[in-house]
Amino acid sequence: MHSLRFTGETSSNGVVERDFILNAPLNGTVNEIPGVLWSPASGGERAPLVLMGHGGGNHKKHPAMAGRAHLLVTGCGFHVAVIDAPGHGDRPPTAHDEQEIAELFRARAAGEPEGPIVVRYNAHLARQAVPEWRATLDALQELPEIRAEGPVGYFGLNMGTAIGVPLAAAEPRITAAVFGLHWPDLLVETARLITIPIEFVLQWDDEHIPRESGLALFDAFASKEKTLHANAGRHKETPRFEADSAVRFLARHLGRAGTAPA
Amino acid sequence: MHSLRFTGETSSNGVVERDFILNAPLNGTVNEIPGVLWSPASGGERAPLVLMGHGGGNHKKHPAMAGRAHLLVTGCGFHVAVIDAPGHGDRPPTAHDEQEIAELFRARAAGEPEGPIVVRYNAHLARQAVPEWRATLDALQELPEIRAEGPVGYFGLNMGTAIGVPLAAAEPRITAAVFGLHWPDLLVETARLITIPIEFVLQWDDEHIPRESGLALFDAFASKEKTLHANAGRHKETPRFEADSAVRFLARHLGRAGTAPA
Repeated sequence: MHSLRFTGETSSNGVVERDFILNAPLNGTVNEIPGVLWSPASGGERAPLVLMGHGGGNHKKHPAMAGRAHLLVTGCGFHVAVIDAPGHGDRPPTAHDEQEIAELFRARAAGEPEGPIVVRYNAHLARQAVPEWRATLDALQELPEIRAEGPVGYFGLNMGTAIGVPLAAAEPRITAAVFGLHWPDLLVETARLITIPIEFVLQWDDEHIPRESGLALFDAFASKEKTLHANAGRHKETPRFEADSAVRFLARHLGRAGTAPA
Repeated sequence: MHSLRFTGETSSNGVVERDFILNAPLNGTVNEIPGVLWSPASGGERAPLVLMGHGGGNHKKHPAMAGRAHLLVTGCGFHVAVIDAPGHGDRPPTAHDEQEIAELFRARAAGEPEGPIVVRYNAHLARQAVPEWRATLDALQELPEIRAEGPVGYFGLNMGTAIGVPLAAAEPRITAAVFGLHWPDLLVETARLITIPIEFVLQWDDEHIPRESGLALFDAFASKEKTLHANAGRHKETPRFEADSAVRFLARHLGRAGTAPA
């Protein structure tokens, strides 16, 4: 069985940040998965949970993660969890990870397309990360302050989408998701299985992901309610207001703490 | 010279609604253009102005106009003006208007594409409406409660975009605009002249406007800051939250009343 233990706690601006380690028997061995849970300092009633996937090369406490978590906790009263993806953050890379990263840097330096390498490597990581996320969700929903019966959201761009799309397809507890900034290859067939409300972010002038490819991934979701937000600019220039928009989308679908979803 | 006179006033929920008639010498004759101005009941300091263009077959006080105006007035402290387009609302249709409308209804009943008729008719109306809007803006900016030196926004979908795109291209006082739900034909070349921030709305499953056509019009704007919001659903199914989003966009770019733009 899995077990979750908290290893540290800090608090600032109304948000409690707790580090945790999840011990989960996966792939025949017991994996230790490091994560972080941000919660309202006010405590109080049980509240919805948002899982966030970090981007490639980053980690669970990257400023983008901490910033979005603060918006969700203070704006909506939600709990927000992030775990380090395999080979990221506190998790040492395998020889395979190092080989793929070296290949990515080589392609980048040579001015070759990054897409084929990122797509296959992210798919590899997702196969490991999806069961890790599901075990994490099991453990988090046993906490008294998180609603076991309540809705769960997901918010992850870039690699967070490569992991989040198969996770949302496999996990009926996730009821709304924000995705974006990824190639459709290897994700389109899975996206076709997804029917929950989706907000999807892409960059209109993305130098890595062709415009038609980004639009094709948005198009693939079977969701009756889905919204595309495409902004002028390059791959890394997603405007800051899209984080506010994602928070409003999740608030609309998960309901603020203590209220029913709208 | 133009002159603007108020012909009626009502007030509800913190919003004052004033009907006006603009007398403007245009096309060699004096035109009487009926309009409505919604303003904060609280009065107070000068505030930015938003011009809104109504949809084809509608009029200045259509519920969509009144609803958006209330959001802008009560949420941002803005003034909001709408004028009846030529042949719409209180303005009697000409023989040409009646002929085009009959042709549109005939095509619709026959299951033929509406696009070619709507595109040419809206372009015809825009040629008349753009100078009318500019005269209206001149007159409104003389009112003491509207900032003559302040920023001006525009918000119009469907026919409101057919009129708004050439208006924004011609009118440097307009500094941010929300457009959408229109064919690119006859608008693309004008859109290429526009560099102000744009929020653009389209329907992903529009049965009248092909997806590629809607995307082509968004693509044409030369604006460095532009955002596409594409929602699943048919032509008339734009979600209600897009009105809230448009209001936030205009608030971000015009600044709330009494504050500088962000």
